[in-house]
Amino acid sequence: MLVVMQHQASEEQIAGVVRAIREMGLDAHPMPGATRTAIGVTGNAEAIDATRLESFPGVLELVRVTKPYKLVSREMQPDDTLIELPPTCIGAGTFTIIAGPCSVESEENIMEVARELTRRGVHLLRAGAFKPRTSPYSFQGMEQAGLDILAKAREETGIRIVTEVMDAEHVSAVEDAADILQVGTRNMQNYSLLKRLARSRHPVLLKRGMSATLDEWLMAAEYLMAGGNRKVILCERGVRTFADHTRNTLDLSVIPPVKQLSHLPIIVDPSHGTGRRDYVPAMALAGLAAGADGLMIEVHPDPQNALSDGAQTIDFEQFDRLMESLRQLAEPLGREIN
Amino acid sequence: MLVVMQHQASEEQIAGVVRAIREMGLDAHPMPGATRTAIGVTGNAEAIDATRLESFPGVLELVRVTKPYKLVSREMQPDDTLIELPPTCIGAGTFTIIAGPCSVESEENIMEVARELTRRGVHLLRAGAFKPRTSPYSFQGMEQAGLDILAKAREETGIRIVTEVMDAEHVSAVEDAADILQVGTRNMQNYSLLKRLARSRHPVLLKRGMSATLDEWLMAAEYLMAGGNRKVILCERGVRTFADHTRNTLDLSVIPPVKQLSHLPIIVDPSHGTGRRDYVPAMALAGLAAGADGLMIEVHPDPQNALSDGAQTIDFEQFDRLMESLRQLAEPLGREIN
Amino acid sequence: MLVVMQHQASEEQIAGVVRAIREMGLDAHPMPGATRTAIGVTGNAEAIDATRLESFPGVLELVRVTKPYKLVSREMQPDDTLIELPPTCIGAGTFTIIAGPCSVESEENIMEVARELTRRGVHLLRAGAFKPRTSPYSFQGMEQAGLDILAKAREETGIRIVTEVMDAEHVSAVEDAADILQVGTRNMQNYSLLKRLARSRHPVLLKRGMSATLDEWLMAAEYLMAGGNRKVILCERGVRTFADHTRNTLDLSVIPPVKQLSHLPIIVDPSHGTGRRDYVPAMALAGLAAGADGLMIEVHPDPQNALSDGAQTIDFEQFDRLMESLRQLAEPLGREIN
Amino acid sequence: MLVVMQHQASEEQIAGVVRAIREMGLDAHPMPGATRTAIGVTGNAEAIDATRLESFPGVLELVRVTKPYKLVSREMQPDDTLIELPPTCIGAGTFTIIAGPCSVESEENIMEVARELTRRGVHLLRAGAFKPRTSPYSFQGMEQAGLDILAKAREETGIRIVTEVMDAEHVSAVEDAADILQVGTRNMQNYSLLKRLARSRHPVLLKRGMSATLDEWLMAAEYLMAGGNRKVILCERGVRTFADHTRNTLDLSVIPPVKQLSHLPIIVDPSHGTGRRDYVPAMALAGLAAGADGLMIEVHPDPQNALSDGAQTIDFEQFDRLMESLRQLAEPLGREIN
Repeated sequence: MLVVMQHQASEEQIAGVVRAIREMGLDAHPMPGATRTAIGVTGNAEAIDATRLESFPGVLELVRVTKPYKLVSREMQPDDTLIELPPTCIGAGTFTIIAGPCSVESEENIMEVARELTRRGVHLLRAGAFKPRTSPYSFQGMEQAGLDILAKAREETGIRIVTEVMDAEHVSAVEDAADILQVGTRNMQNYSLLKRLARSRHPVLLKRGMSATLDEWLMAAEYLMAGGNRKVILCERGVRTFADHTRNTLDLSVIPPVKQLSHLPIIVDPSHGTGRRDYVPAMALAGLAAGADGLMIEVHPDPQNALSDGAQTIDFEQFDRLMESLRQLAEPLGREIN
Repeated sequence: MLVVMQHQASEEQIAGVVRAIREMGLDAHPMPGATRTAIGVTGNAEAIDATRLESFPGVLELVRVTKPYKLVSREMQPDDTLIELPPTCIGAGTFTIIAGPCSVESEENIMEVARELTRRGVHLLRAGAFKPRTSPYSFQGMEQAGLDILAKAREETGIRIVTEVMDAEHVSAVEDAADILQVGTRNMQNYSLLKRLARSRHPVLLKRGMSATLDEWLMAAEYLMAGGNRKVILCERGVRTFADHTRNTLDLSVIPPVKQLSHLPIIVDPSHGTGRRDYVPAMALAGLAAGADGLMIEVHPDPQNALSDGAQTIDFEQFDRLMESLRQLAEPLGREIN
Repeated sequence: MLVVMQHQASEEQIAGVVRAIREMGLDAHPMPGATRTAIGVTGNAEAIDATRLESFPGVLELVRVTKPYKLVSREMQPDDTLIELPPTCIGAGTFTIIAGPCSVESEENIMEVARELTRRGVHLLRAGAFKPRTSPYSFQGMEQAGLDILAKAREETGIRIVTEVMDAEHVSAVEDAADILQVGTRNMQNYSLLKRLARSRHPVLLKRGMSATLDEWLMAAEYLMAGGNRKVILCERGVRTFADHTRNTLDLSVIPPVKQLSHLPIIVDPSHGTGRRDYVPAMALAGLAAGADGLMIEVHPDPQNALSDGAQTIDFEQFDRLMESLRQLAEPLGREIN
Repeated sequence: MLVVMQHQASEEQIAGVVRAIREMGLDAHPMPGATRTAIGVTGNAEAIDATRLESFPGVLELVRVTKPYKLVSREMQPDDTLIELPPTCIGAGTFTIIAGPCSVESEENIMEVARELTRRGVHLLRAGAFKPRTSPYSFQGMEQAGLDILAKAREETGIRIVTEVMDAEHVSAVEDAADILQVGTRNMQNYSLLKRLARSRHPVLLKRGMSATLDEWLMAAEYLMAGGNRKVILCERGVRTFADHTRNTLDLSVIPPVKQLSHLPIIVDPSHGTGRRDYVPAMALAGLAAGADGLMIEVHPDPQNALSDGAQTIDFEQFDRLMESLRQLAEPLGREIN
């Protein structure tokens, strides 16, 4: 950390800050400059809330240097995390497809989707039983009945289930029906939920918050890992910006820094990322080329009659064309789609 | 709602959309234009998920016209909501001060703050017992012990308590210690929590999400009201933008539209809004001038030694100067500070 | 400046960076820390493009410490700049009103506005002869004919003129008709224009760019001052964010840091800032309370028939009410409206 | 266009708006709804500034339906624009590489780069002679001397030149030295410059403004086309958001809507888009996969000693690896790199 003093800070003020740093058990390195003095701070500043230095007389600002995350960082674990869910896996050179409707609508619908996906070699089905909806008057999901349908689809087809959990209360029920527990964008910083999921035996798919910085997102993952769950999958699903040509702004440029800073796998959700069915294939291919570890795609036998998010959902014919394009692209990239 | 057809949409496609609208029990008003046809939709579209029209062939986009909220809207309740917490109240012409440290640090600290505030005629003390922190390694609050301290301060001084609740599990405990339950910015769309708070007898102070649109914020308030809690206080605390001169971008321009669209009171948090103690007084005065119903301010006897958010916290000397300025400004604005 | 080395940087890489810093004629202060080494850089780094250090092997990132502006900074000039335009002035404790229609529409209209403003003691009339419009098919302003009308209004009523100049080519013509040259938000970083205006004898009103950081804005002002024009007025007119309840997001929280960092006056444009007539008065009052040095307001005798921006323009009846409120608020704030 | 009336609008107010619409020569279609009335407007509303309807009593808001651009739209020209610059071309199925240093530094440097690129089959060299710099104290480019060097490189190697022009004054000089005139992000809405470039015989590469919506960007292109220049190339270079892991947020998701709405070619600049050399290859590949028509990449024989933007510049070894990857990916995508 660096403490930047004001231009007009007195010698006494500088000495006061140096003293305070040393009283915290840290080392202080004053550097008198042409226009102002800066004081380097070394030692284990993580353990200490040094931000209160910002309140000292003469201090202009604090500049943080060390990244705050530990367990999620590649410095801690150089090798990519691989999450095994036989017969499939996520991370470390594979490219994993997760597909399905936005929400669980009916047993008939889910069974049909599960069979269609299985037939195409897709091992992970997504569908929401609990739906976080902006309006209290919108369909809030089939809840437990939806979980039961998902469990049944798994039993009958062997497909594995990815579904959202919205609160600590329902974690056990979702764990029973699902193989991967999804944390939605609105809950990325719901720390009570994260602490509960840190104790789960299931992998957690952690969607990026609508306006989360990369640091905040990795720190949310750190909550999961610090609590004991090492099976974390990041999911970029678009962030909120001024741009209005897509529902969100899909930030594919987060992929290279995630890969540089962390060992965790990252997948891309081009359906929520764009909000428009027409744009999904291009962004899916771009996600693969950018180095993501997989995709989460909304697919439905009849998007026009989907209960939610129909506009961003593709049908199976479009899905087949997309899978064909992905396969052709994966080869020169040395990736295997599973 | 308006369904805008593509330039090259066929007669048949237009007829298909009109038919689908009517099958939903709504009225369709086709308007052939110079370059394209638009179809007006009237009737109770709220009850129906008409967004699936976006998937119909020939449809370019849907344009929503009616605002989605009901109970929070001024159309529903023309008079301002007044929340009574004797001897004080929030809304309807008063200007309410809520003040205190970021977090509960110790009994000694809270008792001192409670006495200092009471002496100055401030009726509401804020302090967090549960703290949502970006890092799992940061101080997470005193939790139940913190609540006990707050309850004791209330008992001894009569001051009323505003404190954050982070999950449904702790609502009862917080209700016992506090008079107003605060929902933090990261939980604005934690619908499980909102549904639980909708059943509380206590007023809820709902902070705006870090990148929440006004519609999303009012819809979160609608969750509370739809579930039976009519005592909702909105709190603007800055939103996330590209700007880096303040911690967040305090959006005071949300106040006039809130007042126009809703009957709910809105207060301003210039401490989180700016993140810098120096900027708090100017933004507090601006909030009053812009028409807010009150302020939430971080104050601490010794900000340099506050356990969290010291940089944005003022001391009691600065607080006194600010209160004096607020009083002088309130008079010509016809507002009474309480 | 601080050079932060990667965790795994070698001794040799650290030595390489230290050597390069010294070869630039600067001082290097290596600080070995618990997880990584940082190297403080002191000396006149401004004159040197030290960013190329970012390319050195082992370097993680550069952290800039010194603010890049000089002439605009309060460190350089502690006293507020006062721009005199007898009988009025801008800055240093006054509160200046600039008002008028969005664009020059006709001689009749401008003469009426000039008389109405003069009668009310307003000394500065705004109106655009050159209009930057998003569409090439929209009204682009009356151009030279508009300037002639403005010059005539000044001659007949004595009111002073504020009008936009869009390119270097027209600076002389605008200088002849106007007292203050306005640089629009789209041209804040049009450096060719800024360099030309730096040689003008007229004050320049520099609107903040739509997504300009405070640093970029002050650096644009620095272009003007570095080229010899010390009469710069900053104007906050809203920035672009995700928020959609106002046309732009009026960032009043930029006022306290501007006042802290710079001696230049700053005014607020609540008309463009909100885009909605209803919201203009509240934001005008808030701008005064936040510490701005004045306002720029769109006013028109008949906003419904204004050629541009009618929706954000108030009429003279609303203007009178606003002026009355401003006067009442100015008094306790110790400000004098002129 | 749709005029949405307020909930409580009177019959008289509705009739007033209908009358005003008809007086503008447009058609009005009132649609009484459950909670409010909306009035559809058809006819050639483009030619008329109908926004003044927003000022009428009882009007809540205007909703624009028709997209404002004409010449740039695919509705006007269904086939992709192809810009021929023998022996290369841009658009319509090819994938064009533009490469070179950020700025012209010396004749030696440019000649070396030109030869290295020519040897690799790259036909377009980029380098800035005029540099828009945030600070007036930074290197502003070699200006005319830089143009002379570019012209010489073209003469000696046959490579074609892409370089920025910052104002109308220098357009002729840049036209003499360059084959494609670049408009920088800060000048996207410099309409004086656009109007001058509309009269140029050279193609214009129009970078997206830092916070430009897609509509604003296409409207800036419309300025060029409306003035007679049909050879417009769009360039996505990242937009400004809250995200801080990259210099800008590269918005690849703008590519599919550009392709849908317009016939103009679009290229991607991953160097400015990310600001980090390490992230350039992944984003370059993603741009190709997303459907862009080409790339603009900063390359320099010795990035550590580049005069500007060294941190985002790759060297020729990295460039070779990237070209190899691009070629492998282009084949399955049915694209030919030129």
